[in-house]
Amino acid sequence: MFIKSPLAPAHFPRLSPISGVRVSGVAAGLKESGRPDLFFAELAEGSTVAGVFTKSKCSSAPVDWCRSILKHGRIRGLIVNSGNANAFTGKAGDRTVEYTVAAISKRLGCRPNEVYIASTGVIGVPVSKDYIVAKLPAVAKKLGKSKWKEAASAIMTTDTFPKAAMRKIKIDNADVTIVGIAKGSGMIAPDMATMLSFVFTDAKIPAQVLQRLLRDAADRSFNSITVDSDSSTSDTMLLAATGQVQHPRVTKVSDPHLKEFREALRDVSIDLATQVVRDGEGAQKFATIDVDGAESAAAARRIGLSVANSPLVKTAIAGGDPNWGRIVMAVGKAGEKADRDRLSIGIGGVAVALDGQLVEEYDERVTGAHMSGSEIEISIDVGVGQGKARVWTCDLTRGYIEINADYRT
Amino acid sequence: MFIKSPLAPAHFPRLSPISGVRVSGVAAGLKESGRPDLFFAELAEGSTVAGVFTKSKCSSAPVDWCRSILKHGRIRGLIVNSGNANAFTGKAGDRTVEYTVAAISKRLGCRPNEVYIASTGVIGVPVSKDYIVAKLPAVAKKLGKSKWKEAASAIMTTDTFPKAAMRKIKIDNADVTIVGIAKGSGMIAPDMATMLSFVFTDAKIPAQVLQRLLRDAADRSFNSITVDSDSSTSDTMLLAATGQVQHPRVTKVSDPHLKEFREALRDVSIDLATQVVRDGEGAQKFATIDVDGAESAAAARRIGLSVANSPLVKTAIAGGDPNWGRIVMAVGKAGEKADRDRLSIGIGGVAVALDGQLVEEYDERVTGAHMSGSEIEISIDVGVGQGKARVWTCDLTRGYIEINADYRT
Repeated sequence: MFIKSPLAPAHFPRLSPISGVRVSGVAAGLKESGRPDLFFAELAEGSTVAGVFTKSKCSSAPVDWCRSILKHGRIRGLIVNSGNANAFTGKAGDRTVEYTVAAISKRLGCRPNEVYIASTGVIGVPVSKDYIVAKLPAVAKKLGKSKWKEAASAIMTTDTFPKAAMRKIKIDNADVTIVGIAKGSGMIAPDMATMLSFVFTDAKIPAQVLQRLLRDAADRSFNSITVDSDSSTSDTMLLAATGQVQHPRVTKVSDPHLKEFREALRDVSIDLATQVVRDGEGAQKFATIDVDGAESAAAARRIGLSVANSPLVKTAIAGGDPNWGRIVMAVGKAGEKADRDRLSIGIGGVAVALDGQLVEEYDERVTGAHMSGSEIEISIDVGVGQGKARVWTCDLTRGYIEINADYRT
Repeated sequence: MFIKSPLAPAHFPRLSPISGVRVSGVAAGLKESGRPDLFFAELAEGSTVAGVFTKSKCSSAPVDWCRSILKHGRIRGLIVNSGNANAFTGKAGDRTVEYTVAAISKRLGCRPNEVYIASTGVIGVPVSKDYIVAKLPAVAKKLGKSKWKEAASAIMTTDTFPKAAMRKIKIDNADVTIVGIAKGSGMIAPDMATMLSFVFTDAKIPAQVLQRLLRDAADRSFNSITVDSDSSTSDTMLLAATGQVQHPRVTKVSDPHLKEFREALRDVSIDLATQVVRDGEGAQKFATIDVDGAESAAAARRIGLSVANSPLVKTAIAGGDPNWGRIVMAVGKAGEKADRDRLSIGIGGVAVALDGQLVEEYDERVTGAHMSGSEIEISIDVGVGQGKARVWTCDLTRGYIEINADYRT
């Protein structure tokens, strides 16, 4: 068992059921440790779905399957296992997915293209064709409306705490709930981990609108965090909408009725994504990096991620060192336009550099005190435009090296 | 003083003089430590020059100067200091460069656009206008034909050994020598280091031909290595040719007379670049990564660098773990075309995975024994084309964290 991250939230959040969703999480024996390893969700007829996946060119068999059925936009079942990622397992891996999907579609009385699957754990280790199917009765028996903690626990690999978030908002006058769970703590020994997130809502939203909402939320959350710059073959985020709440019909993403929903979805996604950072391997500090003045929001995010991924910035955070020179370096290497003579940097709300030069009255003791805390704030203005973005990262510590270098497979 | 890297060469190489070049390296008091910090080179009239520089958008004042004069293609003087990078020093930094260049051009009786400058050390700390000029007499007094070790030592920052290389070849029947020096060991506390390399030859080669030769050599050497993926505001590589050797005139890079020279220049550059890797912060192991079967040589290099930069691969190397799953992950995240079902991976010459699956008779004890050594070989075939590349990296160790997190500025 891993020691709980010092940055973990005090407790698992209180979560409501989502009408039209039943979930369960059990220990099905897929992990040698005997910890929970199988999550199953059953969704009401008419549920729509959206998904975003790893950009890896070596994506896993489950990711390839989900991508291939996404155009249908419907979901009735979702099965997720931890313990084995079914990645780099050749054609046999694809056949295992097809066999699993067929068994679930038969059980639910739905089409195979309404069944989603995700797997996380060791890669390159062949799985037997029925490694999930044999456990279906056990996980189905436990389905319930409030088993969120069991679900969030079953998808963990080296996570040190289960991750979930909820927001309640209104669409017109109707009460709508969004609940999400996630896993991830960077890539980890013995092989690799993965970022997975599954978000459910009782709103009624067509799949193509859902897809745009999810893309926007993912860009501002899971695509704006980093632990170690490594991305897995299996990253998957799904958003499912059961349509059980009666509200005015929405047909496009710009519908004013969706404003609250869009913001709440971003909030849930950011909540989950920052929990992943807080569980980063070896993390002792959590850092928020704000970039402003870039050519575009995308440019700002790339600059932010360049800073957030820099081993030198991350070790400076670990060491409590307000090393703004490394921040300049990381801004410069991002490859995005920046005006050397207008660049400004702040640490913990204190201006360190303005217009490309160190602030004259700059007192490193003040920023040093901020950097010695566990919640770090860095702000950067690159002085060329209006583009802004916020990204999150953690520090790079001896703990990261110990976790990843010392545990032999 | 830093402890010499365990991967350092046994001794500094024996180097010949280059006709038309005099060099010196002295301790001019720019470094608080009192170690050598100023390198000066004087070149014969008619010397040509080529240069490649950091891609950082926040490049230093010296880099901006060199870039601005490169089109003239002539060099008579080169001054390099360690201790202060004169980066992020605003307009005052530019004026310091102009003042330094003017003083040297006056001393040498040449045009300012024949004087090159490079600086490495802390950034953002203003320098006095004459911080180099005041030391010129001291460094000029020591000029000599064989002061290579003094020169290589004067450009060091946190390097643990001076770096140089030499090749002797023929252009037609004439003997030609190439000598290069370099510095770099990753980016380092208290602020940042830089990669600098200066290569000299007595061949007679027009500047535009020299530029293409240098670009090719840099791509295969300094652009194919990584210590921590961070790149400085000051990276500079210059190639100067004094033209003191009589040989048939060369006017284009494809001239058959240049074949040996081109290869020798690559060799010198690779020799220097791999010495930088061997001096990587905290490095205990040196890794060579060969990529084949990519869409192009550039794609192969990007895949190789994705593997070489991956913290998970680098910690696996540190831990002596033949963790091929992390290699697959890093190939996948490179964003270049790869065929999941044709991907092959070898470690230490042993096939681990073929055609996208683990080799059946694979014995991890064999690759584990290789990974426990200090010279690691990884080969990757991504199965889509003919593009190949070789890159070099070192492991990511506790030492890196200690160097970069524990030393406060």
